[in-house]
Amino acid sequence: MNEKRPYEQIVVEAVTPSVDGGRFPVKAVAGEACVVEARVYRHGHERLRAVVRYRGPGEPMREIPMRLVEPGIDRWHAELPLEAIGRYRFTVAGWTDHYASWVEELRKRVAAAQPDVASEIAEGMAMVARAAATATGPDGHAATTLGATLEALANDPEALLAVAASDDAVALMGRLGPRVDEGHFEPELEIVADRPRARFGAWYELFVRSQTTDEARPGTFRDAEHRLPALHRMGFDVVYLAPIHPIGHTKRKGPNNRVGAGPGDPGSPWAIGSEAGGHMAVEPALGTLDDFDRFVRAAAALDMDVALDLAIQCSPDHPWVRAHPEWFYRRADGTIRYAENPPKKYEDIYPLNFDTPDWQRLWEALLEVVRFWVAHGVRIFRVDNPHTKPIGFWTWLIDTIQREAPDVIFLAEAFTRPPMMQALAKRGFTQSYTYFTWRNTKAEITEYLTELADPAAAAYFRPNFFANTPDILPPILQQFGRPAFKQRLVLAATLSPSYGIYSGYELCENAAIPGREEYLDSEKYEIRPRDWEAPGNLNAFITRVNLARRQNPALHHLTNLRFLDIDNDQMIAYVKSTPAPASSVIVVVNLDPTQPQFGHLQVPPEAIGVAPGRPYSVDDVLTDQRFTWGETNWVRLDPIDGEPAHILRVDPGDVGA
Amino acid sequence: MNEKRPYEQIVVEAVTPSVDGGRFPVKAVAGEACVVEARVYRHGHERLRAVVRYRGPGEPMREIPMRLVEPGIDRWHAELPLEAIGRYRFTVAGWTDHYASWVEELRKRVAAAQPDVASEIAEGMAMVARAAATATGPDGHAATTLGATLEALANDPEALLAVAASDDAVALMGRLGPRVDEGHFEPELEIVADRPRARFGAWYELFVRSQTTDEARPGTFRDAEHRLPALHRMGFDVVYLAPIHPIGHTKRKGPNNRVGAGPGDPGSPWAIGSEAGGHMAVEPALGTLDDFDRFVRAAAALDMDVALDLAIQCSPDHPWVRAHPEWFYRRADGTIRYAENPPKKYEDIYPLNFDTPDWQRLWEALLEVVRFWVAHGVRIFRVDNPHTKPIGFWTWLIDTIQREAPDVIFLAEAFTRPPMMQALAKRGFTQSYTYFTWRNTKAEITEYLTELADPAAAAYFRPNFFANTPDILPPILQQFGRPAFKQRLVLAATLSPSYGIYSGYELCENAAIPGREEYLDSEKYEIRPRDWEAPGNLNAFITRVNLARRQNPALHHLTNLRFLDIDNDQMIAYVKSTPAPASSVIVVVNLDPTQPQFGHLQVPPEAIGVAPGRPYSVDDVLTDQRFTWGETNWVRLDPIDGEPAHILRVDPGDVGA
Repeated sequence: MNEKRPYEQIVVEAVTPSVDGGRFPVKAVAGEACVVEARVYRHGHERLRAVVRYRGPGEPMREIPMRLVEPGIDRWHAELPLEAIGRYRFTVAGWTDHYASWVEELRKRVAAAQPDVASEIAEGMAMVARAAATATGPDGHAATTLGATLEALANDPEALLAVAASDDAVALMGRLGPRVDEGHFEPELEIVADRPRARFGAWYELFVRSQTTDEARPGTFRDAEHRLPALHRMGFDVVYLAPIHPIGHTKRKGPNNRVGAGPGDPGSPWAIGSEAGGHMAVEPALGTLDDFDRFVRAAAALDMDVALDLAIQCSPDHPWVRAHPEWFYRRADGTIRYAENPPKKYEDIYPLNFDTPDWQRLWEALLEVVRFWVAHGVRIFRVDNPHTKPIGFWTWLIDTIQREAPDVIFLAEAFTRPPMMQALAKRGFTQSYTYFTWRNTKAEITEYLTELADPAAAAYFRPNFFANTPDILPPILQQFGRPAFKQRLVLAATLSPSYGIYSGYELCENAAIPGREEYLDSEKYEIRPRDWEAPGNLNAFITRVNLARRQNPALHHLTNLRFLDIDNDQMIAYVKSTPAPASSVIVVVNLDPTQPQFGHLQVPPEAIGVAPGRPYSVDDVLTDQRFTWGETNWVRLDPIDGEPAHILRVDPGDVGA
Repeated sequence: MNEKRPYEQIVVEAVTPSVDGGRFPVKAVAGEACVVEARVYRHGHERLRAVVRYRGPGEPMREIPMRLVEPGIDRWHAELPLEAIGRYRFTVAGWTDHYASWVEELRKRVAAAQPDVASEIAEGMAMVARAAATATGPDGHAATTLGATLEALANDPEALLAVAASDDAVALMGRLGPRVDEGHFEPELEIVADRPRARFGAWYELFVRSQTTDEARPGTFRDAEHRLPALHRMGFDVVYLAPIHPIGHTKRKGPNNRVGAGPGDPGSPWAIGSEAGGHMAVEPALGTLDDFDRFVRAAAALDMDVALDLAIQCSPDHPWVRAHPEWFYRRADGTIRYAENPPKKYEDIYPLNFDTPDWQRLWEALLEVVRFWVAHGVRIFRVDNPHTKPIGFWTWLIDTIQREAPDVIFLAEAFTRPPMMQALAKRGFTQSYTYFTWRNTKAEITEYLTELADPAAAAYFRPNFFANTPDILPPILQQFGRPAFKQRLVLAATLSPSYGIYSGYELCENAAIPGREEYLDSEKYEIRPRDWEAPGNLNAFITRVNLARRQNPALHHLTNLRFLDIDNDQMIAYVKSTPAPASSVIVVVNLDPTQPQFGHLQVPPEAIGVAPGRPYSVDDVLTDQRFTWGETNWVRLDPIDGEPAHILRVDPGDVGA
């Protein structure tokens, strides 16, 4: 009985959370508990014990017991406390609890009033004696005492059973019992416990050079620093900068991506590298590296993150072009190939060739770039087009960096087919851009969010909903202006825990190149001073939305999303709730930016934790209106003369009542 | 470029069929093609090639090319021919097709009328030159020719493109191109290709000793042999025998499980072992081993299988009790423990103790038992209560036997919680008993069959629907007699490719112990002679059902099940179709055995492969009636004065028309 078994006796399977059966890590947030479940069972009718065995970053292995919560399908449950930021390893293990099995059988015999159970009692006493003989300390003492007590009651099966079956006795023997047939899940599973901002944050994207009042004088890090308090007041957590590196001169693009820049044209910040340096330098017009450091410190003082753009490409003037010409694509005629997607040409940009025989030095150089900015206090990287670089590179880069600095966040800007977007997330990207900008109708939004909020997807893919980007001005914003800007902001900010806007959104800027999703006079090629307090700005609206996000824990999560029935296809409604802290937010959006829409909204009481049939109060954080609601509610939203949405905080006093 | 990459460049994932990501083998049938699909993709816009790499039993590794059938989600497809019975190993591999990528880009440049593509042309010609330099044989010659042709056209990009992009050139260069970045799925996946009877067969369970006209003279193998032609005429493929081994005398049970048998009582065949031998002997009253061999040969001559019951337990008189007392449970008082589930006792049976320190010899002895009967021509084992033995034992036993005799089929008689039933199937059991006997209503049947027919489940779990067993006489049969027997037979035989009945079913025997699912005067404890032609027998009905199964390929499958709408909760309807050979069968069953039911049945044209709006003919194989049907059909089934079901063969002449 005490010999280890070289074959499978205990089945441990269906462990959750897990991604592709343990092939990739699960994403979670430090400071929260992670629910671990598994099916654990064996042949016959014996009782089992199961544990989660785990170790956090730099910690020793520990165990927490699991509970059998659904015996009919052998489902066990535990909550794993994730205290530290970093990588956890865990598995689920189970083994036969022979003592508990013996108690159970003795209970049946006693209940059946079997006359002779002396032999059965002797079996259990032998188990206790073995435990007492091997255990030390308090448990050893307790086992000795238990043995003596059972011995004294050996002729009184009912009394003996009462002692033997006590919680203390069962727990004691559970701790001391041999685990000869232990089985555990393989492979060992991994959880990446990120800091909370990995899941929840409001992003604001800007060009440092536009933080000026005069387009002839580029904005600097010092100027940008002065913008931080306003962004902080508006509720943004992350300020994401378009590339800050020296911009090339060769083949520099002019306004509207024109070939051949004029003398005053600043060029695209994505054409990285000049005589002033490459990816580890800052464009001199923006200031010095010291200025940048100061900017990062100023943001940190407001509890804001600075996110940098990691764009792996070079201008023809990048120092690597001369130092490492073998890192680029050489044409048969000896020239270096610029970026091109025929008939489109990007002569100001040289892509890097990851197929180079010197790829290892290229990888190391890119790692050094990231390490450099991490050393300068940057903890978020928005990665440009990761789907055009080898996937194995990202696995290695992110793993290497996060082992050194586990609080670093990587956001994948991959707009491509779903499998590659998912693959990048599985291989380490903390967050991912999404198709949100192209999901406008109720059916589109419902389908896409149902996919993203599925716990199996959310275990590895964290969306970041940008309402616009320097490359994407969606047709709905172009055509419908301010009401559409409000509507899309509410959707982004309440559907996804992470969302973002690119500057100018708050001013409802919507001039596009006709027939395209691109901005007219794009800031990518020009300096764009703005009047942040211009009439019609959304500053106050955005401030309210971001405050609602901060104050309502329900909005910090994704998998708690539940769509609600509303009998109007132009309106969408959903609720998010968390049990502890108790928080419920109902959102209703009029998807039609041109006119009022109305409908009957169904709110199942259990979706918000109120008692059936009981009225409850909701407060609209956008208008400060208060309503008394029930299961069916009439909702009318006027995007022109009112607001296109409700963001309704359910009065916590009414929850659970 | 020609250096192998030590990192992931090609993603290969979501390979189907697979069970738990490759942890367990997939079940398939030899002689059929197995559809293999996967997602294969990489970064950027390069073209890929993908193959299934596989080897059959005793065969060398081979490759078959895959096709990209759904580019938007990177889905590739191939059909793997499973020619032999046995275990196949396979994986999916992909790599960059640089030549095809070059053709594609050149095509774009030519289409954009780029003036200077000389350098690009030189790149492609270099690829062809490298291929020509390394390839030998016809491909080498073809590459040399291709190179010369391209050279001659180097100044005419359009003409060159036409040659370079030809199917022949792309296929040639696809064969010759280097696979430096090849990625493949891990782990290697396994397919168990069984003989067709593993999936499709009609079983008939009998007690040899009851094949007599006189209960004082037990039936013998010779008597049973005389029953075979009748069973064959009725369309049965498998004759499954209750245990045929010597029956113990100690604590032998009398009729109705009575403690203490009378002198003439034959005892339970599951109390295995006497002075005449154990699991490798036959009960002397049934005849000799030679008689058994002759019985097996007689069955084989009719293309019928003999299935034996493998019940791992012993009577107190089994030779192992004396030879290997350590294989049994020893009580603290030194006696051997009989089987017991308090308050129930089975004094005539000693369970084997798989926890014995001598477990390895016990396993070997059981392996020898199976080998013994395999040597005597048995190719099917119905395993009694496998869920009470260690799961690792079954993995080992089945794998060992099937490596020696890949045509051996194991049926798991596990009536327990779903996870264990699934686990046994994943670890090797060819077929599994199910909950079918307890699924009676339309909702129950629909839900259960939807679960079983899911391709992910069917990849490892093959149901065998027994309509009754010596242990299970379901209440519906007890209460409603002949119409219910017909109804349940049709359901079992048409829902599941494998099904079975226990003898007496055809006579509608339904006397139960009151309030129980057990037969009154169970054949387990008595010899039961029967008049097989007694009035009211279902012989002709069963013959028709089994013939319909044989003649309609659609009924040989499970995953092709599709439920149809019928507007009466007492009626269930479904269709099964196969495209090649074209076969469609519509089944409608009145689930109410007491009275006629009727309703409107919807048959979507595409479900049976007929043109929309076109009438088609169906032939009822139970009544030889012919109907002209359309999309909506009125169906009335009278279980008392007619038949409780239609089994409707769609006229193949109407399919695809």
